[in-house]
Amino acid sequence: MSKNKLRIIPLGGLGEVGKNMMVYEYGNNILVVDAGLMFPDNEMLGIDYIIPDFEYLKERKDQVRGIVITHGHMDHVGALGHVLEELNVPLYATPLTKGLIEVSLSEKGLLDKTTIKTVHAGESVKIGPFEVEFFHVCHSIPDSVGLGITCPDGLVVHTGDYKFDSTPVDGWPTDFSKLAEFAGRGVLALLADSTNADKPGWTPSEMVINDSLDKVFRSAPGRIIVASFASLVSRMQQVIDTADRYGRKVAFVGYSMKQNSKMAKKLGYLDFPSDIEVGIDEALNMKPKDVVLMATGSQGEPYSVMGRLARGTNKKFELIKDDTIVLSSHAIPGNEESVFKTINSLFRRGANVVYEPLAGGVHVSGHANQDEMKLMLNMVSPKYLIPIHGELRHLKQHAILAEETGFPADNVLVIENGHVIEFEDGELVIKDRIPGSYVFVDGSRVGEIGPSVVKEREQLSQDGVVLISLVLDSKGKLHEEPEIISRGFVFKHGEDDVIEETRQKVMEIVEKSPGDLHSQVVQSVRSFLYSKTKKRPVVLMAMSWI
Amino acid sequence: MSKNKLRIIPLGGLGEVGKNMMVYEYGNNILVVDAGLMFPDNEMLGIDYIIPDFEYLKERKDQVRGIVITHGHMDHVGALGHVLEELNVPLYATPLTKGLIEVSLSEKGLLDKTTIKTVHAGESVKIGPFEVEFFHVCHSIPDSVGLGITCPDGLVVHTGDYKFDSTPVDGWPTDFSKLAEFAGRGVLALLADSTNADKPGWTPSEMVINDSLDKVFRSAPGRIIVASFASLVSRMQQVIDTADRYGRKVAFVGYSMKQNSKMAKKLGYLDFPSDIEVGIDEALNMKPKDVVLMATGSQGEPYSVMGRLARGTNKKFELIKDDTIVLSSHAIPGNEESVFKTINSLFRRGANVVYEPLAGGVHVSGHANQDEMKLMLNMVSPKYLIPIHGELRHLKQHAILAEETGFPADNVLVIENGHVIEFEDGELVIKDRIPGSYVFVDGSRVGEIGPSVVKEREQLSQDGVVLISLVLDSKGKLHEEPEIISRGFVFKHGEDDVIEETRQKVMEIVEKSPGDLHSQVVQSVRSFLYSKTKKRPVVLMAMSWI
Repeated sequence: MSKNKLRIIPLGGLGEVGKNMMVYEYGNNILVVDAGLMFPDNEMLGIDYIIPDFEYLKERKDQVRGIVITHGHMDHVGALGHVLEELNVPLYATPLTKGLIEVSLSEKGLLDKTTIKTVHAGESVKIGPFEVEFFHVCHSIPDSVGLGITCPDGLVVHTGDYKFDSTPVDGWPTDFSKLAEFAGRGVLALLADSTNADKPGWTPSEMVINDSLDKVFRSAPGRIIVASFASLVSRMQQVIDTADRYGRKVAFVGYSMKQNSKMAKKLGYLDFPSDIEVGIDEALNMKPKDVVLMATGSQGEPYSVMGRLARGTNKKFELIKDDTIVLSSHAIPGNEESVFKTINSLFRRGANVVYEPLAGGVHVSGHANQDEMKLMLNMVSPKYLIPIHGELRHLKQHAILAEETGFPADNVLVIENGHVIEFEDGELVIKDRIPGSYVFVDGSRVGEIGPSVVKEREQLSQDGVVLISLVLDSKGKLHEEPEIISRGFVFKHGEDDVIEETRQKVMEIVEKSPGDLHSQVVQSVRSFLYSKTKKRPVVLMAMSWI
Repeated sequence: MSKNKLRIIPLGGLGEVGKNMMVYEYGNNILVVDAGLMFPDNEMLGIDYIIPDFEYLKERKDQVRGIVITHGHMDHVGALGHVLEELNVPLYATPLTKGLIEVSLSEKGLLDKTTIKTVHAGESVKIGPFEVEFFHVCHSIPDSVGLGITCPDGLVVHTGDYKFDSTPVDGWPTDFSKLAEFAGRGVLALLADSTNADKPGWTPSEMVINDSLDKVFRSAPGRIIVASFASLVSRMQQVIDTADRYGRKVAFVGYSMKQNSKMAKKLGYLDFPSDIEVGIDEALNMKPKDVVLMATGSQGEPYSVMGRLARGTNKKFELIKDDTIVLSSHAIPGNEESVFKTINSLFRRGANVVYEPLAGGVHVSGHANQDEMKLMLNMVSPKYLIPIHGELRHLKQHAILAEETGFPADNVLVIENGHVIEFEDGELVIKDRIPGSYVFVDGSRVGEIGPSVVKEREQLSQDGVVLISLVLDSKGKLHEEPEIISRGFVFKHGEDDVIEETRQKVMEIVEKSPGDLHSQVVQSVRSFLYSKTKKRPVVLMAMSWI
């Protein structure tokens, strides 16, 4: 039998932003880190979200010893429901992360079947042959951790999402001393967050939000409505603290905002006297000047509270005079348009809207910028650097930063999902790439929808569809005039020349009775429509014989 | 007869970014400023571009005295082809703007029919009852102007796109003294650019690009390929100057890049010794280290030089080892995804890519930031301020900035397209809004495609289409099994359960022979498919009787 070797296989998050999933393998033992989802880009039409292709794990069910979760954001936990349907393995997470996962799994009815083990930052756990040390990192959600993963081949440091915030809202900075300790022991490889690799300098501290919120609260003439992510517990704390200072009460609006704030308070991640929080009904009966509402919808999601307020379709309450809305979040890439449309609609309904880049920081990034990434590399001083979490441009840029610090270029590995890395006597070797692809989740269908279906949707979305229905008699003559239906192609007005001309065209072709009638008609109609309209609708034909 | 009054009617650019068009009306005389296009957002599926709805002008053809163009960008000139097909009126433009319009109109075969009068910044022209004074402004294209428009009701200042750049590449700053002179005469209304109203401080000077380019040129090991807009003449000059400093030759690649550089050099807007420019063939035969290629495609357009290089489909040349690509432009809002995909693909093919926000500025905005907007307002000190050019959030923010300078809030008018403004004895009155909408240009069809067709495309793009074709005999029984075709809905593999089950479902319904067979089948199939897949494809049915 060959000697056991440490292998690292990225199943998600390398070459893309989102759906993070990393596999650590030693002999017949697999440790999984994170299981996240990714939101579709504008070209993935109709897709709800994307999860990692974890076929590799399904084929090795018996070898998976556990899944470690670094923090509770959807790009790290959002695929857990799908993964747990296939793999019955324990999860390891810190208390708040565990709480957020439980809220989400209970909605899916999966909670009873799942074992989630609580680990605190600073503790370590033995998972198969892996000794996993959890160390605290700052991020835009409390209780985030990075991991030190030790197996007989050495120590690998996996940062997860992190930033070096010296004044975090919860007073708990990234665990510098642990990083230094790792360095003392000798680190084989560092797998480090690359999300902000093209952003210079340092990410501002969460603390800068306080000043911006204070400025808004100081002058807001009426109600204040803060929109943020339901998982952004530190932002909740900041809003509550500011509200308290100005004598306002806070109401959480929307299911996930309410559930998460309740859970976070219970676990001690939110700290406030109970009388500051009021229910939404009570809040709506108070003077506007005494109230803050905190809701979801900072990404312009149409069915969120903020989306409904923008369209005037929120049932519980509407915008009123002198409302001030604070969008305390950064638009997720690809979402800019819908966020800005929501902002414009809120303005149109008379609200004042405070958003990035206004007001000098109503949101800050949760990820390390360039100088922090260099610091991480210098502190950990690993033998190898493997940039993770980011599009290829971010990973490449991370490599360039490393070289700027004097790190040997040959020891930086820029790889994308599926590339297998193996360590042989402390030397890193790149092996074959395992197959893998996007798994689209579309309605109730997981993985059934592939790129070819999305491609068809794209064709349909560009120029619409034209349907031709023919009924032919036994002599191959038309039993009646062809029926022609279109969608997304032309107006449906009484006499549409193009459709009528197409019908004549089809009749001419059938008259000639060419060899392959179906392809002749479809091709002729396609080129006819292109010559008339310079557009290429999808042309479909149904043909019956009587 | 009622007294003549100055009326201002925005037909484009207010409440949106792009397709700028402003109407100034006095009695029976209309002056049009700019005629631009707008690029579709991600929800306007299949649309090529959008032009202003200029029905108002078509109905008053005889009253239009001329169209004044502030500068040669597509969002100010891109609808001219369509407008000139309807209105036979003279254009007024500065020499470079005229040159760019001529290149574009000659491609459309419209140049012979059009009169373009050359006006230099600093001159004034009488157009009907309007005295139009052209004054120089800095922008990301040379020879841009703002306008002082005087009629018997007073003087209106229309900034066009502008920034206050103290060190512009062409050495020609915005005409402060003219603005001061206007203020001295007394300005009834200022219509000012709001594009960057949410950006604090000052826009950096174009000059900062020089340092960034120098840094790239200093260390690039091989060829340099600079991608930018074909209209960005000042960037061409900067690239040429830097190339010259490092002993490199420059080749312009692509039709519009070549035409515009040639025209700009002829008119004196590009200044360089002829031996610096080489043809592309010559460039490809030189040592990589001696060459700079300048091409289009900075927005990730698939058929641009850069888009083809990213896909490996460029015919003339391919990427080679040590190529450095500089994307010297900012992604147009909504284009971020395609720009970043292009960047990732270029990296994947081995090039080094320098892009925003890297390298400390390979592009700067051409629009004034907040402090410049305040300066403009203070210098011109108009009676009324009308923010133009921007989404509602930008216009609102412009109003807030004005109030911060002490400008009376009641004298700022935040309005969107179609709102008619009238001046009565120096007082501004808002009149009724005229009807108007987006005019979609889609292939060869202008205005034929409306929101309802785009809505259909959206439905098709989300879940695809399912087509049912029935042939019934005289007794209302099926002549044969229904044909079912789908696109963008499911995989096309041999035995597809959903499609087969749908066929059975349709046969059951026809068996029962309900009243309205068509709507019964369509509705049942819709709810059946939703229950099976949680998706709502467009369901269409063709029915024939024999």
